[in-house]
Amino acid sequence: MENTYEGYKNHLQKIAHINSSIALLNWDEAVYMPKNGLEIRACQLSTLCTIVHELSTSPEFENLVNHLLEKSSFGFKETRNLEETREAIQENKKLPLEYVQKAAIARSESFKKWEEARGEENFQIFAPYLKNIVDLEREKSELLGYEEHPYDALLNLYEKNLTVSKLENIFSQVKSQIVPLIKQIVHQPQVDDGFLYQNFDGDKQFDFSVDLLKLMKYNLDAGRQDISTHPFTNHISSQDVRVTTRIKENDIAEVIWSTIHEGGHGLYEQGISISEYGLPSGESVSLGIHESQSRIWENNLGRALPWWKFLYPKLQEAFPEQFAEVDLSDFYKAINKVQPSLIRTSADELTYHVHVMIRYEIEKALLEGEVGVEDLEELWNQKYMDYLGVRPGKPTEGILQDIHWSHGSLGYFPTYSLGSFYAAQFYAQAKKELPDLESQLELGEVSNFLALLRKSIHQHGKLYTAEQLSERFTGESLNIKHFVAYAKEKYGAIYGFSPD
Amino acid sequence: MENTYEGYKNHLQKIAHINSSIALLNWDEAVYMPKNGLEIRACQLSTLCTIVHELSTSPEFENLVNHLLEKSSFGFKETRNLEETREAIQENKKLPLEYVQKAAIARSESFKKWEEARGEENFQIFAPYLKNIVDLEREKSELLGYEEHPYDALLNLYEKNLTVSKLENIFSQVKSQIVPLIKQIVHQPQVDDGFLYQNFDGDKQFDFSVDLLKLMKYNLDAGRQDISTHPFTNHISSQDVRVTTRIKENDIAEVIWSTIHEGGHGLYEQGISISEYGLPSGESVSLGIHESQSRIWENNLGRALPWWKFLYPKLQEAFPEQFAEVDLSDFYKAINKVQPSLIRTSADELTYHVHVMIRYEIEKALLEGEVGVEDLEELWNQKYMDYLGVRPGKPTEGILQDIHWSHGSLGYFPTYSLGSFYAAQFYAQAKKELPDLESQLELGEVSNFLALLRKSIHQHGKLYTAEQLSERFTGESLNIKHFVAYAKEKYGAIYGFSPD
Repeated sequence: MENTYEGYKNHLQKIAHINSSIALLNWDEAVYMPKNGLEIRACQLSTLCTIVHELSTSPEFENLVNHLLEKSSFGFKETRNLEETREAIQENKKLPLEYVQKAAIARSESFKKWEEARGEENFQIFAPYLKNIVDLEREKSELLGYEEHPYDALLNLYEKNLTVSKLENIFSQVKSQIVPLIKQIVHQPQVDDGFLYQNFDGDKQFDFSVDLLKLMKYNLDAGRQDISTHPFTNHISSQDVRVTTRIKENDIAEVIWSTIHEGGHGLYEQGISISEYGLPSGESVSLGIHESQSRIWENNLGRALPWWKFLYPKLQEAFPEQFAEVDLSDFYKAINKVQPSLIRTSADELTYHVHVMIRYEIEKALLEGEVGVEDLEELWNQKYMDYLGVRPGKPTEGILQDIHWSHGSLGYFPTYSLGSFYAAQFYAQAKKELPDLESQLELGEVSNFLALLRKSIHQHGKLYTAEQLSERFTGESLNIKHFVAYAKEKYGAIYGFSPD
Repeated sequence: MENTYEGYKNHLQKIAHINSSIALLNWDEAVYMPKNGLEIRACQLSTLCTIVHELSTSPEFENLVNHLLEKSSFGFKETRNLEETREAIQENKKLPLEYVQKAAIARSESFKKWEEARGEENFQIFAPYLKNIVDLEREKSELLGYEEHPYDALLNLYEKNLTVSKLENIFSQVKSQIVPLIKQIVHQPQVDDGFLYQNFDGDKQFDFSVDLLKLMKYNLDAGRQDISTHPFTNHISSQDVRVTTRIKENDIAEVIWSTIHEGGHGLYEQGISISEYGLPSGESVSLGIHESQSRIWENNLGRALPWWKFLYPKLQEAFPEQFAEVDLSDFYKAINKVQPSLIRTSADELTYHVHVMIRYEIEKALLEGEVGVEDLEELWNQKYMDYLGVRPGKPTEGILQDIHWSHGSLGYFPTYSLGSFYAAQFYAQAKKELPDLESQLELGEVSNFLALLRKSIHQHGKLYTAEQLSERFTGESLNIKHFVAYAKEKYGAIYGFSPD
């Protein structure tokens, strides 16, 4: 290892080459791997992850980073990269390899049992494995350390500096502003969205999804679209960013908004300069900011009128039988139907945050030891009744619906809501900076909007924290009031009432 | 590293996990990678190859293998595995990492210039880079060492124990038996194969190719079929073996025989037990034997009458417009048309070996220093005139047609001919062991044939050498007389004459 910034960069890029190989292994597993390939795939991933862990925490590398930070004077970017790396090394070292491997085995077992429990509609099959996961997550939070709340250590893995105290502030407003708004909507006459659930040819859906990506200025020389069970974005480098979509023959909403959503994630990754590959300046800053980039396309553009004035004729052309007789205004209402329901991933953009809040409250209580795994099913069902007025008829409609806990990802859910709230804040700012944004969208013109996101968010990688990015772009850190204002204005108009 | 056979196996499997990740990177590059992904892909491959080289030659690992061989008494399989590994370590150590990396850069540059030279139809653009490749290959042969001929060291990389002296014997028979047979055929009335070059729908071709794989008993739960520029077989493990095909809208031969050929390669890999993964007993023995498994399906089954009695009605059903009026006997003659031509990859099964022989003679002369790169184009053209009576009109029809030299693969071509000659020998033996083989094929029944290949070849991995496998299966080592007899009988009948 050369004792210079170049040597530091080379080592990071070596790690990145292995990490990006891991990314390809994961992508392939989800889209094309033959089913018998699973066993060896798990071993490949484990081997490469172990090598990454060793390289990322090697004493020689740590010494180099410390040496460079102490002895040399660098510009802003180099210093921030070195600081970020030093912090990452220290974080990585807190989790010994034995813990990482023990947790990987537990996740793998737990995932299998989650699937089995789903098949049997029996939470008790999964419960002991979830208990093990929760114990391991608690151990992890102790290994990582925290100041106020054990949950903070886990939140910090997905969104640096996020704390229970910040989330309490955010979700208290979900409770006081969004939940009442939903209750008001429920009392209005409901909109008709039946025409979204006709029969749509799968190949035509896929072609339309690729057209959508092109209209978003997604670079298909540096990316691709495939089909998978769960839509996702995978990046090998900013020059090879892959998105997937899900096609349901009798539901056109699935392909459209999963494509726009993943396309938004993908545009973030494509917006990072390849020259920063492997460095913190070449990595997305946090899950919350990542989700803001998918949500701003999916909701603020993708469920609003201006862009659909341009897109809707194209959809009608692709599916004339299904849409020739449907007005744009009816289509717009249909794609914004709000209805309390049981499944998070298919929830509308208002009730969605109640789903997240319920998970947040449960995770926090688990970490605090206030509830045990054995109480979770009833607790879950009760919260759905309290907040949304619905009650799961079976575990796959309730406690067993999400994969996250089986993967040991506690602290992940809140970033979904953060993303939407950031998106509303960023979109409000975009309208200020691009006063003709909505008339551009009516012409299908997204270049200026994308350029603004590139300039304000994408290009910086991890050089600024999420909070700093937000402050530099919008003048303030995350503020849910933008989402609340957006929601009240939009849904008041759609459902024809004045929100409280 | 644990000081036991288990520790040895774990280390080999760790290497295999990285090698199989490399296999996936290569597969993806050829089938699905977006075009901008190339630069990072090269770096990923280089990083993983370096790690493999370090792990494969680590002194600790070498000591373990030597220790186990000296101190412990193992059964046949374990001893053979350890011996093979010891030999591989010694071979790998002969090429220092600096040489490996220097050669990788030269190959990469040379490949680019080969492509450029092809675009310009100008061998001189490629010549200096080829000279560099030849120098590096000569350096490699000195580093590896040899007893009689520098070419032997390179041959040995693809086919262990293969030597110039053995090849002289083989190709002298190509010259004395096959070349005259071709000349006799050329003087007979030619067969009509025009109906193979009608227009065939691409999707239907692909569907037919998947049906072919299923008829071959290819396991699609442990493999898949995709489309690529050049057909190939890629194996991650015996549980994940992927083949590709090439589709030409106006040539049905392409998809059929590339599928059967790669399917034959794939069946070999699927026939190795997953319990041997990573060990020599879990690796195919040599390129020649590998090619025998593709060729036996492609030619001995796939261009013969019995199996087509079963397959042809299916082809007619898939493409009724094109084949309803064509007799099986005309079809059979068409797919066996012999015609001297310029391009190796599209040559028939007789002239093919003249193409290989020309390359063999040139490579040997290059290694001996008897000819220089500057003389190659004319030498090439002259040999085509002498042996086949045809002369390239431009370099892409001649000296620039094959990718191999730009990749630094000298010594590779002869294994193609070896494969066909082994295939004829193995097929003759199969007919002895399965007297009703051809009537089974007429019913589409290939299970017993496949089981015989599994038992005689596939399951052994590297436990026996290619020569030993041949001796155990057929009672003798490679003997080209089986191919000569097969060729004379088959083509005498098709073209209606008695071969000399």
